[in-house]
Amino acid sequence: MRAAVMYGAGDLRVEDRPDPKIVDPADAVVRTVAACVCGSDLWPYRSMPATGTGRPMGHEFLGVVEETGAEVRGLKTGDLVIAPFTYSDNTCDYCAKGLQISCRNGGRYGLDGVDGGQGEAVRVPYADGTLVKVPVAADSALLPSLLALSDVMTTGHHGAVSAGVGRGDAVLVVGDGAVGLCAVIAAGRLGAERIVLAGRHEARTDLGRRFGATDVVAARGEEGVARIRELTGGVDKVIEAVGTRQALDTALGAVLDGGTISRLGVPQYEEVPIGPAAFMRNITLTGGAGPARAYIEQLLTDVLDGTITPGLVFDRTFTLDRTPDAYRAMADRQVLKALIRP
Amino acid sequence: MRAAVMYGAGDLRVEDRPDPKIVDPADAVVRTVAACVCGSDLWPYRSMPATGTGRPMGHEFLGVVEETGAEVRGLKTGDLVIAPFTYSDNTCDYCAKGLQISCRNGGRYGLDGVDGGQGEAVRVPYADGTLVKVPVAADSALLPSLLALSDVMTTGHHGAVSAGVGRGDAVLVVGDGAVGLCAVIAAGRLGAERIVLAGRHEARTDLGRRFGATDVVAARGEEGVARIRELTGGVDKVIEAVGTRQALDTALGAVLDGGTISRLGVPQYEEVPIGPAAFMRNITLTGGAGPARAYIEQLLTDVLDGTITPGLVFDRTFTLDRTPDAYRAMADRQVLKALIRP
Repeated sequence: MRAAVMYGAGDLRVEDRPDPKIVDPADAVVRTVAACVCGSDLWPYRSMPATGTGRPMGHEFLGVVEETGAEVRGLKTGDLVIAPFTYSDNTCDYCAKGLQISCRNGGRYGLDGVDGGQGEAVRVPYADGTLVKVPVAADSALLPSLLALSDVMTTGHHGAVSAGVGRGDAVLVVGDGAVGLCAVIAAGRLGAERIVLAGRHEARTDLGRRFGATDVVAARGEEGVARIRELTGGVDKVIEAVGTRQALDTALGAVLDGGTISRLGVPQYEEVPIGPAAFMRNITLTGGAGPARAYIEQLLTDVLDGTITPGLVFDRTFTLDRTPDAYRAMADRQVLKALIRP
Repeated sequence: MRAAVMYGAGDLRVEDRPDPKIVDPADAVVRTVAACVCGSDLWPYRSMPATGTGRPMGHEFLGVVEETGAEVRGLKTGDLVIAPFTYSDNTCDYCAKGLQISCRNGGRYGLDGVDGGQGEAVRVPYADGTLVKVPVAADSALLPSLLALSDVMTTGHHGAVSAGVGRGDAVLVVGDGAVGLCAVIAAGRLGAERIVLAGRHEARTDLGRRFGATDVVAARGEEGVARIRELTGGVDKVIEAVGTRQALDTALGAVLDGGTISRLGVPQYEEVPIGPAAFMRNITLTGGAGPARAYIEQLLTDVLDGTITPGLVFDRTFTLDRTPDAYRAMADRQVLKALIRP
């Protein structure tokens, strides 16, 4: 099969790889119908040291079950399934708590002999625990929004849930990437009344408004904080969907005492400046890598009936062989989120 | 009047100060009946640069109302009152949310022309908003436990509430100081089933067991974390009641993925190591300076009927003139918490 493999910063190749086969009786092989490029894929694309062996890329995909292992009970050949961005047994103590991202037996695509999602097919471990069957045809117009449940929409939802967003709240979303925009959808869905989106890319913030943002703040740094405080007086709930220290500083500047900052962007820093000052202000820092598997079913209903349309974040489609172009376009900010069709 | 004033590290003096008088019509003057020394008083005692003017010390006290300003409605001369460790109007937006520590008009004792609590009398701003009247005589045997509501017990309660402690939980309390021990009481009161107390001072951890700790871990650092994990398999809720990086590292090592660390110890660090690893683990960091005023009434009932006895943390009483000895004894760890009787 063909699949995308990263060999170092800027060096993504689409090449022939062995066709996936059932290894463990809990596995399924899924033929990919749609995949995409994640903002977090851009970090290795920008900085990964060169390697001779390469790493299969991609962790967001949906597809059709091609083959199942002997122990797989809930899926059969031909089922259309969404893969959450990590696999999980869905039975361990963490999974039972809804924290499938920390599954005791779980793991990540592209590592430990498991294929990446940016390829023609994937062997999915713990298929029963991982994959969620969806009741539409493989050519449904809903596919982009269903694919968004693999990561960006469930991650945005995790941010809103972790921040404790509820009816009538004022919420700040920092970052107009696909996750930030999905966090806008999620905050609105949970009842937020005011949603301030901090972002500088007009096409993206326009989509944010369509998703429910009531205000957009383009200024950054101290000026951005001042503008957010002027608009809102400060907010109790912040969803930080970038991962840089600057974005975190904006969150810390805009949040009210006693407020909550939920992080969704993978931190590009090791240390957080929450010493005595943040302590005196009772700031809560929460969030993290979202347990997509925990949320897919509850968000699925809203996607199927058209209540939410997170698939609008995909603004260009590439064939699998053009995946390197997709990375480049996203890295250059010409594309918000690239959809890959094998 | 006589009052304790800090002039620099190790240089605490008890000296004559002007008798407090009503300055603002919302003030009350309170004649101190009992005060105490806080663990946080020891930080300036260890490190404050020398100063010519000095700073009045103490922020935990109870006493009898001596005089009230023209606007004070809820208090009268002769009332016995508990002073939370900061004053607050109890009407602003933060106070309305139960975050009196962030009161828009509030402040701290010993600053801005307000007396410290370690003295014969205190002018208390926003007396109606700040002081809580208690229905006992000034010579009641309950006084130490009532005094504990001024800070340590309400702070311990804040830790347990912020950590989300509930029925059946396993909770780790890091630190066997007075706040940590009160956090043990608070965790038990909220229904925790297993309470592991990390501390090395046997007399203190023995009191912790009396307060409800089910396990004591004396080992520190990695060995301590290993022991806590061996005992519990990791915990979902941690109350960090020290304020050092080592205590925070213990908390981070012992907490389960998806768990919560509530900080009560004033951080003696500026940065927290919660980068990508803590992000992937969905660790929540919460807590902060407790809004004592928000909790006094609800804990008062349990003190009055003897359900909780936080006053046991006071293991030695000093006269006001011997306050320097009280600091020294606490700094040398000969005394857990010193009670001061003017």
